[in-house]
Amino acid sequence: MGNLLIVGTVAFDDIETPFGKSDRILGGAATFIGLSASHFNTESGIISVIGGDFPKAYLDIFKERNIDISGIDIQEEGKTFYWKGKYDYNLNDRETLVTDLNVLADFNPMVPEKFIDCDFLMLGNLHPDVQMAVIEQIPERPKLVVLDTMNFWMDNTPEQLAKVVGKVDVITINDEEARQLSGEYSLLKAAEKIHQMGPKYVVIKKGEHGALLFNNGDVFFAPALPLEEVFDPTGAGDTFAGGFIGYLASTNDISFDNMKRAVIYGSNFASFCVERFGVERMLNLSREEVRKRLKQFKQLTQFEIELTQ
Amino acid sequence: MGNLLIVGTVAFDDIETPFGKSDRILGGAATFIGLSASHFNTESGIISVIGGDFPKAYLDIFKERNIDISGIDIQEEGKTFYWKGKYDYNLNDRETLVTDLNVLADFNPMVPEKFIDCDFLMLGNLHPDVQMAVIEQIPERPKLVVLDTMNFWMDNTPEQLAKVVGKVDVITINDEEARQLSGEYSLLKAAEKIHQMGPKYVVIKKGEHGALLFNNGDVFFAPALPLEEVFDPTGAGDTFAGGFIGYLASTNDISFDNMKRAVIYGSNFASFCVERFGVERMLNLSREEVRKRLKQFKQLTQFEIELTQ
Repeated sequence: MGNLLIVGTVAFDDIETPFGKSDRILGGAATFIGLSASHFNTESGIISVIGGDFPKAYLDIFKERNIDISGIDIQEEGKTFYWKGKYDYNLNDRETLVTDLNVLADFNPMVPEKFIDCDFLMLGNLHPDVQMAVIEQIPERPKLVVLDTMNFWMDNTPEQLAKVVGKVDVITINDEEARQLSGEYSLLKAAEKIHQMGPKYVVIKKGEHGALLFNNGDVFFAPALPLEEVFDPTGAGDTFAGGFIGYLASTNDISFDNMKRAVIYGSNFASFCVERFGVERMLNLSREEVRKRLKQFKQLTQFEIELTQ
Repeated sequence: MGNLLIVGTVAFDDIETPFGKSDRILGGAATFIGLSASHFNTESGIISVIGGDFPKAYLDIFKERNIDISGIDIQEEGKTFYWKGKYDYNLNDRETLVTDLNVLADFNPMVPEKFIDCDFLMLGNLHPDVQMAVIEQIPERPKLVVLDTMNFWMDNTPEQLAKVVGKVDVITINDEEARQLSGEYSLLKAAEKIHQMGPKYVVIKKGEHGALLFNNGDVFFAPALPLEEVFDPTGAGDTFAGGFIGYLASTNDISFDNMKRAVIYGSNFASFCVERFGVERMLNLSREEVRKRLKQFKQLTQFEIELTQ
C-alpha cells in the first residue's frame, strides 16, 4: 500500500439541473477525488485552502473517511471557493453562473511533513503554478504523479501548464481538452503528441462515452455504464480520477494491466457519482454495490472470440 | 451456415470530405452491407433496384464476391439512386446536397425464389412499406430479421415504420434515432421502450463512440477502434450491420454470446470502411488484417479483475 496525497479545491457548489437545485453543497476537485479514493484501503491526505465559512461538519466528513486534513489551510478571515453552475436538459452542456475564487486566489500549498515522501500524488485541476509548487516541495519523486487540468489553463497559462505537464506520469483530461492541448483531432494522435510533452500515460475522459487509457502504443477503453438516469454530472471526472489513483495506491502496482483495472474502478465510481447531487452517493456507497457494478462492467465489455478464425 | 438476404439501396454516392472528393462512386446500404457480409462464408443475395446507367463493372463486383444479384431489378429506362453529401471538418456532421431517388421512387421488391426460405434477412434503410413488402413475401419466418432505419422515416412515415418495427427481431439505429423513436434520453430506457415495440434485440450505433447491444436487460458494448485518420464515414453504419449479420449467418448461431462477437466484427469492419472512400477498403481487406484488428479490439477492452475484492 502506498500513501496518497491529493491537491485540489475544496469548495461550495451550487448546482441546477433539469431535475432540481442543490443549494450550496460540498464540492471541489480534491473533495470528489478524496472521497472516491477513500473507498480503497490507502492512507490519504488533502492539500487545499478553505475560508472561515466552511462548516466543521464538512471537515468531519473527511476525517470520518480517514482522510488527513492537516494540509487544508483554513483562512479564518476568508471565504471558501464558490462555484455555481447550471446544466442543460441533456446534462452534457453546462453554464458557469458564478465563480468566486475567494481564498483560492492566493492559495499557497504546503505539503505536510507526513506526506513529503508520498508514493502517489494526485494534482487536481488548479492553476499550474500551484500544481508545480507542490511537486517542488517533494524532494524524492513519488512512484506516480497524476495531473488533471482543463481548457481554462490551456487558454490562459499555456507555458506554466506545459512546464507542469512535463513533470507528471499521467495526465487526465477530456476529449476536447486533449484535442486543444495537442492540436490533433484524432484522439490517438492527440495522445501521441501529449506523450511527447511528458506524460507516459494519457487518460482521455469522454463523459457518457467512457474513457481511454494510452501508454506507448497500447490503448485500453473503459466504457461508461449505461444508466437509467443521470441526475448531476458534477464531480464525475474527479470521482473517476479518485477511483483511478485510489485503486493504484491501494494495490501499489502501476503496471499497465493494473491501470486497466484502475480506469474500470474510476468509471465504476463515476457511474455512482452522477446518481445524486454532489458527493451524496460517494458517502453512501457499499462495497457490495461496487462489486455488483463491477460485474456489470464485465458483462458489458468481456467477450470470447477465436482469433484464428 | 444460414443463407442471407439483404434488401436495400444500390446507389451512386458523390462524397466531399475535408480530405478530398470522391466523384460518383458505388454506394448504397445494400452495397455496404453485402460487401461487408461477403467476408464471411455465407450464401447471400441482394434485393434492390438500379437504372440503365449502372455500370456492369459494378455488378461484377458483387458477382466476384459471390453475392447473388438476381434480386437486383435493372430498370433500363431509369436512373440509379444518387446521393451527394459533404462532411464537416470533424466528420461527424454531414450535409446532404442532392438526393435523386430516380428508380428507387417506385421500388417494388421481389424476393427471388432461391431466397424465399432464407434464414437471415437484413432490411437495410428504406421506406418501411418496402421493408414490409419483403417480409410479406417470405411465408416462413426467417431465423433472424434485422432492420435498419433512420430519422427520416420516423418524421415522415411513423405509422408504417411502427408496423415493420413490430415484425423484426433486431433493430439497428443510431443514438439520436433511438432517442427520437422512444422519446427517452437515456439509451437504457430508450432500448427498453424499443423492446416493447417488438425487437428483442436493439443495437444502438454511436459512430466514433462505439455500439451498444441490448437484449432483455443484458447490455454489451463494442467500442469503435481509435483511429489515426478517418477519411470518409459514408457506409460505416451499413458496413457494421453487414459484419454483424454476416457473422451471425456464417455461424448460424443467434445466442447473445454470439451476438456480442457479431457486434465486435461489425465494429471491426466499420473501422476499415472509414479509412477510404466508399467501398474501396472493403474490396481490399485481407483475412489477416481483420484478425490483427480483432486482436486490437481484445487489447482495447479485455481486463482481468477480481470480483471478490
